[in-house]
Amino acid sequence: MFHDSPRFPRGFRCASRNVGLKPKAKDLALFVSEVDATAAAVFTRNHFPGAPVIVGRETIRGGRLRAIIANSKCSNVATGEDGIAKARRMAAAAAAEIGTTADHVLVSSTGVIGVPLPIDIIERGVRGMSADLQDDPMVGAEGIMTTDTHPKALSVSVGDATITWVAKGSGMIEPNMATMLAYIFTDAAIERSALDRMLRDAVHVSFNMLSVDSDTSTSDTCAILANGIAGPVDATAFSQALTAGCIKMAEILARDGEGAKHLLRVIVQGAASEGDSRRIAKSIVNSPLVKTMVFGADPNVGRLLMAVGKCFDCEVRAESTNVSINGFGVVRNGQRLDFDDATVRSTLKEEVVNLEVQLGLGDFSATAFGCDLTQGYIDENAAYYSS
Amino acid sequence: MFHDSPRFPRGFRCASRNVGLKPKAKDLALFVSEVDATAAAVFTRNHFPGAPVIVGRETIRGGRLRAIIANSKCSNVATGEDGIAKARRMAAAAAAEIGTTADHVLVSSTGVIGVPLPIDIIERGVRGMSADLQDDPMVGAEGIMTTDTHPKALSVSVGDATITWVAKGSGMIEPNMATMLAYIFTDAAIERSALDRMLRDAVHVSFNMLSVDSDTSTSDTCAILANGIAGPVDATAFSQALTAGCIKMAEILARDGEGAKHLLRVIVQGAASEGDSRRIAKSIVNSPLVKTMVFGADPNVGRLLMAVGKCFDCEVRAESTNVSINGFGVVRNGQRLDFDDATVRSTLKEEVVNLEVQLGLGDFSATAFGCDLTQGYIDENAAYYSS
Repeated sequence: MFHDSPRFPRGFRCASRNVGLKPKAKDLALFVSEVDATAAAVFTRNHFPGAPVIVGRETIRGGRLRAIIANSKCSNVATGEDGIAKARRMAAAAAAEIGTTADHVLVSSTGVIGVPLPIDIIERGVRGMSADLQDDPMVGAEGIMTTDTHPKALSVSVGDATITWVAKGSGMIEPNMATMLAYIFTDAAIERSALDRMLRDAVHVSFNMLSVDSDTSTSDTCAILANGIAGPVDATAFSQALTAGCIKMAEILARDGEGAKHLLRVIVQGAASEGDSRRIAKSIVNSPLVKTMVFGADPNVGRLLMAVGKCFDCEVRAESTNVSINGFGVVRNGQRLDFDDATVRSTLKEEVVNLEVQLGLGDFSATAFGCDLTQGYIDENAAYYSS
Repeated sequence: MFHDSPRFPRGFRCASRNVGLKPKAKDLALFVSEVDATAAAVFTRNHFPGAPVIVGRETIRGGRLRAIIANSKCSNVATGEDGIAKARRMAAAAAAEIGTTADHVLVSSTGVIGVPLPIDIIERGVRGMSADLQDDPMVGAEGIMTTDTHPKALSVSVGDATITWVAKGSGMIEPNMATMLAYIFTDAAIERSALDRMLRDAVHVSFNMLSVDSDTSTSDTCAILANGIAGPVDATAFSQALTAGCIKMAEILARDGEGAKHLLRVIVQGAASEGDSRRIAKSIVNSPLVKTMVFGADPNVGRLLMAVGKCFDCEVRAESTNVSINGFGVVRNGQRLDFDDATVRSTLKEEVVNLEVQLGLGDFSATAFGCDLTQGYIDENAAYYSS
């Protein structure tokens, strides 16, 4: 369903540059709609939201955006009033460049926490960026990368309209209300409250079920801009496409988790409640022992039961619990099956590993997205600040 | 306060052997009191408790124990009715060897989940073990090791009595109600309900605040045997010593966490409730980004705020949050201080790293125990089942 090469909806363009925050890589991105767009956004629930999140919550109340400006390398978090003033200056600089007001510009910053934002460099750097604006969303995706190994964008058609996702995120990823940075652009015409509801529904089953490392960023932001140029579209089709794209982007982020070699999909079915299904799926996707088992293709499947069973407050009945890996049964009625070791080892080596749990208690299900845990994660995070 | 070399209270002895579950290392341990002891125990809250835990919950209801028998290599978990029958046979075999009944023997098994227990080997192996019984608790500690790098025992005097701890545990460690296997022996005379209460109080602030990897084992067991030979002791002094020893043993287990190079103590003060202080301390001690920061001695201290802030349901106020590392202030009022980088790098290299958080909201505090996350954890767990 997704386009082979991601493209923008009508009226959206982007640019990205190195402005000197990083030695050479791109570190500033600008996304612009040629007309004001209806907008909705969700942000991190972390108690220490970054200055751009604090300012962004104000901005999004207006419900209209013309642009998003985002820098990498420094997240402008834990920087107090000074950080908030700098986030406002960043919005104003982008607004001046494209000819709008600061309350129509969403600001994001991503990178190390607690370091002052070099706002002068950004103010100088944004000048002239409107001349660079172009049609390829991958260009904007490049400007917001941190430990990502590749830029991330997707697009899909819904009737005459297009939806485009641009995102980044690789570590400090267990979003709650949003993912690190995910921007969604569409030329469909959608009324604000419907857009907000559809965004929240999509995030609930996608970014909010994603975890690379159980650590919830202070910068998580997911925003959608609908500029209306393509006119109205079928609401159901739009909502389904929006959700499908958010799930696909969550999988792309998980697969590119720091050090990851595998995408994990944890599918929990037959739970007694929706909350139980989500908690158990998250428990499995976050278990270091499950993650290292997948990395090593070591069929130590008892660890899956351990990770289900440590959800003390969920309803679980050992006798009705079945588990399979990519369709191969490994646990039936709470007991390990005498499975063919070589078969399970071999399926654990596939790039996508589906861990399927049937609880046999009710009708609720959930899917969580994650990745394996490898030496690469340790290498990356033992010296992130210094490197 | 602890003895230089751990020793047993009067009336307790132990033995350990290789009986063939492992190629060469010791894999069976027997702990015996010469008279019946008053006993209390707490077990894992995992929904998939091992057969020894299911049988142990029955046994401890009697309140009297003469012995503990424990094997390593196979945990007898997820093995159904057959596993339970084998756990009972294991108790009976030990009872026959020392001349008591099976309901006076606590059984533990630790190792891979879901593999059938080779009970014939254990029944043959336990024969004649009573002739090996001796006074050094380290001998018993050797018999219950899995990925532990050294056997773990401690002892302390309380008046005329002694308290001795023997434990194992290195991975799959975030006990809830108990630690993997921790046995406590004393010759003090203590009434059963008081013993039970003192055990639960001690576990609450020690093993239940320990996490190597956030994964809660299906075998966690912590039992105390009081044989009364030394007569009554001061209850307050006993309770304080019991708690101090459980904390010390939790620190020893954390420091020997799989792959660990550092002991982490996370001290949270000024919380609005006890629950908040415990949840925030656990959040920090379990954060992969905090753990890798300590491993790399990389002063990326914003990660500490991230880990506090992701406790969505706890009361946190950014402006009143202070953080220090081994006494060096790194965050004040929610903002990163302009600290001396080299000093903080150097203190992060110490073997024991205290991460201290002041929330400035109330009078509650908690301490959690854990370790750093290194390549060693990945190496150990990517092939645990196969090796």
